[in-house]
Amino acid sequence: MATITASERRAVAKREYDAFLAVCPSRRLLERISDKWVALVLAALGGDGPLPGETTVEGPRPLRFSELSRRISGVSQKMLTQTLRALERDGMVTRTVTPTVPVTVSYELTDLGRSLQGVMRGIKEWAESHMEEVLTHRDDYDHRQRGTAD
Amino acid sequence: MATITASERRAVAKREYDAFLAVCPSRRLLERISDKWVALVLAALGGDGPLPGETTVEGPRPLRFSELSRRISGVSQKMLTQTLRALERDGMVTRTVTPTVPVTVSYELTDLGRSLQGVMRGIKEWAESHMEEVLTHRDDYDHRQRGTAD
Repeated sequence: MATITASERRAVAKREYDAFLAVCPSRRLLERISDKWVALVLAALGGDGPLPGETTVEGPRPLRFSELSRRISGVSQKMLTQTLRALERDGMVTRTVTPTVPVTVSYELTDLGRSLQGVMRGIKEWAESHMEEVLTHRDDYDHRQRGTAD
Repeated sequence: MATITASERRAVAKREYDAFLAVCPSRRLLERISDKWVALVLAALGGDGPLPGETTVEGPRPLRFSELSRRISGVSQKMLTQTLRALERDGMVTRTVTPTVPVTVSYELTDLGRSLQGVMRGIKEWAESHMEEVLTHRDDYDHRQRGTAD
């Protein structure tokens, strides 16, 4: 059997999987990763911006659960746990338990996770950098809708 | 008042908005766009792949509601309507009504929508091209979990 490289395998997979099809497994993977908590966890583990209280921006590095929880304001313990477990199961994050007292649990991006983070980073940045434009469009739209209703 | 270019304005907005903060409006925009239906509608309007029955791949072009509905299998009328309305309100899609009998309604990406599509396209493609790897990781994870439970 001829061996193929990882990039050849991905090119074949890209032809064979089609997220436009409801029955394709890639539709469910798209659903799984199209999620604001996934975007924020990957951004945090990918070193996007300093942690609260820090002034320097670090690169990718392992973070403890409590650090992730502080970084991503408003995330519930339950939602963060679920998101991390799903990312671990899908091979995007490794969970390391260090036998300190109390036990230290840290999370880190895998190569696969870094590859997804390269894609997802764009979405968080897009939301931040286009916020003003979107707000202007919303005002215009709501104004027009009110005009139509009169 | 000094005028600034669109890219300068975006650089400022990117510093001022931070989706890590629950109270920041960009968190809600990130939530809005981190959505599989948004990814699929943008991909369809962006000309990602031929329509069913077509063999050629076209570039971006307007699509009628019924064409979008066929392209994105499994989407309900209600969900497609809601998604298109939100994208229109946010300035990413224009809706054009042509007074034919019956009336023709078509949707097209704006410049802002094309900019988001450039980012979102990566997610759909990532899901399709990394599906095999993710499935392998899931099998491994589930196997390890069963091992632990024994």
